[in-house]
Amino acid sequence: MDQHDEKIIDAEESYGLSTRLFDEVLDAIEADDAPAIDAALEPLHAADIADLIEQLNTRDRRALLQLWPNGVDGEILSELDENLRDEVIAQLNPDQLAEAVRDLESDDVVDLVEYLDAPQQEAVLDALDASDRVAVEKALAYPEESAGRLMQVEVAKAPEHWTVGEAIDFLRSDIALPDQFYHLVLVDPRMRPIGQATLGRILSSARATPLKDILEETFITFNVNDDEGDVARAFNQYHLISSPVVDSDDRLVGVITIDDAMIVLDEEHTEDMLRLAGVGENATISDSVFETVKQRFPWLFVNLITVNIAALIVGLFDQTIAAYVALAALMPVVASMGGSAGTQSLTVAVRAIATNDLTASNAWRVIRREMFVGLLNGLVFAVVMGAVGTFGYGSALLGLTLALAMLINLVVAALAGVLVPVVLDKLKLDPALASGTFVTTTTDMVGFFAFLGLATVILL
Amino acid sequence: MDQHDEKIIDAEESYGLSTRLFDEVLDAIEADDAPAIDAALEPLHAADIADLIEQLNTRDRRALLQLWPNGVDGEILSELDENLRDEVIAQLNPDQLAEAVRDLESDDVVDLVEYLDAPQQEAVLDALDASDRVAVEKALAYPEESAGRLMQVEVAKAPEHWTVGEAIDFLRSDIALPDQFYHLVLVDPRMRPIGQATLGRILSSARATPLKDILEETFITFNVNDDEGDVARAFNQYHLISSPVVDSDDRLVGVITIDDAMIVLDEEHTEDMLRLAGVGENATISDSVFETVKQRFPWLFVNLITVNIAALIVGLFDQTIAAYVALAALMPVVASMGGSAGTQSLTVAVRAIATNDLTASNAWRVIRREMFVGLLNGLVFAVVMGAVGTFGYGSALLGLTLALAMLINLVVAALAGVLVPVVLDKLKLDPALASGTFVTTTTDMVGFFAFLGLATVILL
Repeated sequence: MDQHDEKIIDAEESYGLSTRLFDEVLDAIEADDAPAIDAALEPLHAADIADLIEQLNTRDRRALLQLWPNGVDGEILSELDENLRDEVIAQLNPDQLAEAVRDLESDDVVDLVEYLDAPQQEAVLDALDASDRVAVEKALAYPEESAGRLMQVEVAKAPEHWTVGEAIDFLRSDIALPDQFYHLVLVDPRMRPIGQATLGRILSSARATPLKDILEETFITFNVNDDEGDVARAFNQYHLISSPVVDSDDRLVGVITIDDAMIVLDEEHTEDMLRLAGVGENATISDSVFETVKQRFPWLFVNLITVNIAALIVGLFDQTIAAYVALAALMPVVASMGGSAGTQSLTVAVRAIATNDLTASNAWRVIRREMFVGLLNGLVFAVVMGAVGTFGYGSALLGLTLALAMLINLVVAALAGVLVPVVLDKLKLDPALASGTFVTTTTDMVGFFAFLGLATVILL
Repeated sequence: MDQHDEKIIDAEESYGLSTRLFDEVLDAIEADDAPAIDAALEPLHAADIADLIEQLNTRDRRALLQLWPNGVDGEILSELDENLRDEVIAQLNPDQLAEAVRDLESDDVVDLVEYLDAPQQEAVLDALDASDRVAVEKALAYPEESAGRLMQVEVAKAPEHWTVGEAIDFLRSDIALPDQFYHLVLVDPRMRPIGQATLGRILSSARATPLKDILEETFITFNVNDDEGDVARAFNQYHLISSPVVDSDDRLVGVITIDDAMIVLDEEHTEDMLRLAGVGENATISDSVFETVKQRFPWLFVNLITVNIAALIVGLFDQTIAAYVALAALMPVVASMGGSAGTQSLTVAVRAIATNDLTASNAWRVIRREMFVGLLNGLVFAVVMGAVGTFGYGSALLGLTLALAMLINLVVAALAGVLVPVVLDKLKLDPALASGTFVTTTTDMVGFFAFLGLATVILL
């Protein structure tokens, strides 16, 4: 991958920052060498500078911002992790901040300020022109994570009865156009979007062609209140490049482009992964130790409670264990296999729900399928553990106990793995929300109870 | 979300298929009612039809294809899960197949045939025009999952010395242009791309403006051999819409557009999630029971071996457990808390490596940070479990044992969670590759050994 022109990307890395450049900047910070910092950062893309700022520790970050006071512009602020934006903006004085945000498009300003503290938000809004400020404040009135917040209000549009020639003349006239646009949106007299044509198609059609004849086949509009995650998944499902956004009267109020949708899809994935693992959804490696503990503590605490309940279950069988100590060594085998199988089944189900592949229409079929998968894997591992018990631990009855417990727990694991997210989804909760903890709790408890209970019956 | 024109999307669902429509199709299949199937499916987007085909069971799927013989077109085939394509294509006769693929762009045909069996691939290639066939065969010569396979060969390009006026005249002349394009790529006399201008910018600039003066600021080219995952992440990092692809002589050979990059990014995320859970990377809920068992068995087997080793560790302490049976109940608490904390730390690290936020430059800092997080969480949970041991199980020494083991295992968990993916990445292996199994194995073994070892020293 090469990058020409003004932006340079290091060839050694697949993309982004090189270790060499990072070290150069560190050295320049150490040496208080402002020109060297400028020379190193100036050629970089804003996204890479933001990554670099995120990778520095707090002390170096502060030093960098002091040595490079006019370097941080609106684009870099936009690219920064939300958690760091406050910190960086707090270090800019009002003039620097005004200068930084002035050139951004409305959707980027919204993205920048929506999670800032009230005084910082005010400071940024004060730096905008009156008309931009109105646009941003209007966007902020839409719900968080909605299409209204994601859209840009700058739209290239035309009346529905126009021809290609009229459209070209219009676009080539002196009107203000968005920085980036890919479609001309056709609107009816009441400003309702009725279709859109790509610029490429407009350019390659005869002047007399009505725009209505060259509209794109797939045309989807979003409502300002639509969830941004649904918007992003629709972009991916239907290969949209840009789509109009309408208000409650179906009037055109903005447009969402695929680059923003791609970022949202990326974030949604990350949130799913983090939630599955019981980590706060905005967790990043640039969070402080204290923030990180706060993010992770709650689900560890839930886990602590559930696993102590599992311990009580084990405690019920203390006489069995006292009589047959090998059970203590083998009960984690049954529980752990259940946990692994449950996590497998869970992960596939969470993905399938996110992509609308697992719905009410096929839930029963999928549940049945998982049960068979659990049964088959359970049978194989029952045979293996039966052999381990019989030959490794010298007791055919122990082998039988292991085999039966393994079979039961793998079927339960497969079922729990699909049922937990399906039920959460049915309850309108996030299917990924700490499902992992629920599933492993189930497999721990069932694993211990089945194994030790069977042992009590079979071995004693 | 509304969709007008030819494609209809149900308003009740966020997007995609409704349960009602699904049931309608099922009823029509049951009733052998071909016109009803046609009426139900005809208005749908190809992506939704593919989803529907995926959600049917094998018998219904076969019935549908027989009742709707000319319905499956190239777009639907492109949208189908790879695992199902063979099955569906096998049911089409050569004429139907030829008809289906004829209108696809070269990159879609490549995507369609790359993982087909040789005879099926041959059948599709035979259906193409000679020139399309050459383009597809050339693309298939590039490595799997490379930029060369992802790109389309149809490019809108112009000599570097042209003006806006010349470009517009050229685009409006009778030349063949790609179906969808957003940029005009400028090339030097040796066909090396030197920049690109958006159609919007070209349309809104004066005729005499040299194209060189309105090039996009960020310009990145990819090599045909670049990994498609890196390409997708670069699109997301730099907000690219389309980017040229060059061969080893830096000559323009194709272009990649963001909609394809978005699909790749989505797939990469899914693969990461599935790998973390120890599931085959292409697993979907439409796989058969047998395929699913095959995908999940290997890592369950690895887990079986490691957890049996952990059982041997427990076995070393059988006399301690025999003397103090409560240990058997409490040892899973220590192991499970370690597993949960390790999974949290692992998930954040795997994401950070995927987004280039965790690199050699800051690895030590992140490792140190995780250690502190583990230490802090460990201290809190040590106090809690110390209390549980002292008051719940009536032994202060047991409480002390629990507290120390908990502290040790949470620090180890935090370290393992970040070290396992960092080391895998350093070894050029996928950091997500069954890291979960490695981490929980570590925390199981350390948890059991620390707890039972300390118990032997403190309690006996």
